[in-house]
Amino acid sequence: MKNDIKNAPIGVFDSGIGGLTVAKELITALPGEDIIYLGDTARVPYGTKSGRTVIAYSHSNTEFLISKGIKLLVVACNTASSVSLPSLNSEFDIPVIGVIEPGAKKAVSVTKAGKIGVIGTPSTINSSAYKKAIEELNPSIEVISKPCPLFVPLADEGWTEGELVERIAEEYLSSIKDTGIDVLVLGCTHYPLLKHTIQKVMGEKITLVDSAKETAMEIKQALIRENLLNENSSSSNKEFYLTDVSDTFLSVAGRFLGEDIKKIEMVDIIGTTKVPSP
Amino acid sequence: MKNDIKNAPIGVFDSGIGGLTVAKELITALPGEDIIYLGDTARVPYGTKSGRTVIAYSHSNTEFLISKGIKLLVVACNTASSVSLPSLNSEFDIPVIGVIEPGAKKAVSVTKAGKIGVIGTPSTINSSAYKKAIEELNPSIEVISKPCPLFVPLADEGWTEGELVERIAEEYLSSIKDTGIDVLVLGCTHYPLLKHTIQKVMGEKITLVDSAKETAMEIKQALIRENLLNENSSSSNKEFYLTDVSDTFLSVAGRFLGEDIKKIEMVDIIGTTKVPSP
Repeated sequence: MKNDIKNAPIGVFDSGIGGLTVAKELITALPGEDIIYLGDTARVPYGTKSGRTVIAYSHSNTEFLISKGIKLLVVACNTASSVSLPSLNSEFDIPVIGVIEPGAKKAVSVTKAGKIGVIGTPSTINSSAYKKAIEELNPSIEVISKPCPLFVPLADEGWTEGELVERIAEEYLSSIKDTGIDVLVLGCTHYPLLKHTIQKVMGEKITLVDSAKETAMEIKQALIRENLLNENSSSSNKEFYLTDVSDTFLSVAGRFLGEDIKKIEMVDIIGTTKVPSP
Repeated sequence: MKNDIKNAPIGVFDSGIGGLTVAKELITALPGEDIIYLGDTARVPYGTKSGRTVIAYSHSNTEFLISKGIKLLVVACNTASSVSLPSLNSEFDIPVIGVIEPGAKKAVSVTKAGKIGVIGTPSTINSSAYKKAIEELNPSIEVISKPCPLFVPLADEGWTEGELVERIAEEYLSSIKDTGIDVLVLGCTHYPLLKHTIQKVMGEKITLVDSAKETAMEIKQALIRENLLNENSSSSNKEFYLTDVSDTFLSVAGRFLGEDIKKIEMVDIIGTTKVPSP
């Protein structure tokens, strides 16, 4: 039985396709693991929606992945990680890993100034999830946050470099640039696509932290700790599901994963979602 | 019984709050009518999603409004109007008015050059709904279309004027500016918020057509034609429902309606939506 569990896939969900950056790092760090990815493209984005609605969506995504027999759940969306983790942990029996803590840990280990910047969607920033995670690791560190709502549509549109995008980035980042931070957490899975522009605007002295890599390491450690590492070193299986498949999503998906996705299935989980009454 | 129907409210749905621009014109044109507005903010935006998913969402929105006893349905969203109208007309018994035909009619009546530009979301432009509606009215008119995906997030962010927004607008509009069009249809309910910027970039000689006003006139005519005008000239009732209520939506909603919304209710229609299998 334990062997069966070890060979079970890792489930990854995101509000859309941004979480493919996490899947990509996971494939690199753990090439022998099977992965099932669910992108909730029918309801994307999460970052501008209320916590209650994001929690309801996270639960229906998790139920779908659990029906596929996953051994561990990765919440590859910063907004969903910010608001849904306690609720998912109490509702479901498998280990759940989000992207906030790994990013916070990395930022705390890197800062020398004791001042960390965090950028993300309005929901992620409003939740103060990074601030809380960083302060729990080191209460003396100061956290300066800034929501950057246009970064997600810019990345989706493929506008990731050039003068115009730099001007938009300056508009958002100028207020945190000169606050004395030496680390900036990219608190949204879309933002690494704008990495070059953000680095250029912030200057070379600021270290950018991308949660995707850190999360992959955290998952590896969790699998070892829980004795859940897949011991089959032969070829592994990757499955990709989206709740809505449009041409736009498919063309952008390859850019996120860094390789073509051979097969995507569309699933309907919308009708099974229950949003609790106000 | 006929009197009961006459006194019934008009139902209006949109993917979010952009359709409040249509509700506003409707209130001006028909001050005696009751209005029930539903904004599907839990699943906004529609413009980047597939036709099948948008149709499923349109049906669940319509079922909610019909359960409230409406006499006429207004689809105040260009994307939903583009793809859902035939399906809504065949499924439901009440008159259904979309925003495409009124906008197309106005554009055709205004153009002297016989060349009309249309801007909208990727889904609206991909559907060719405006092109078809214009060609049905006058097959000799040439239609030049351009999707402008960043205009919706820009309007939501409140970035509607200034040099940076003009630069973004130029990026999208430069290719249709010098094609000889003399009319530009703003084929998305969000775009009127960027009207000044779009006019500045296109030049004063181009007439901008905003579907909201034309749609309100079309509704008035439909009510007269169907003998459904509310004959109570006393105070009318407006109800606003959203599928997700976040601070962001509430702050933007006032900007769209042009007045404060006193009461918004949150409704759960997510769990009742059925997306047909691929």
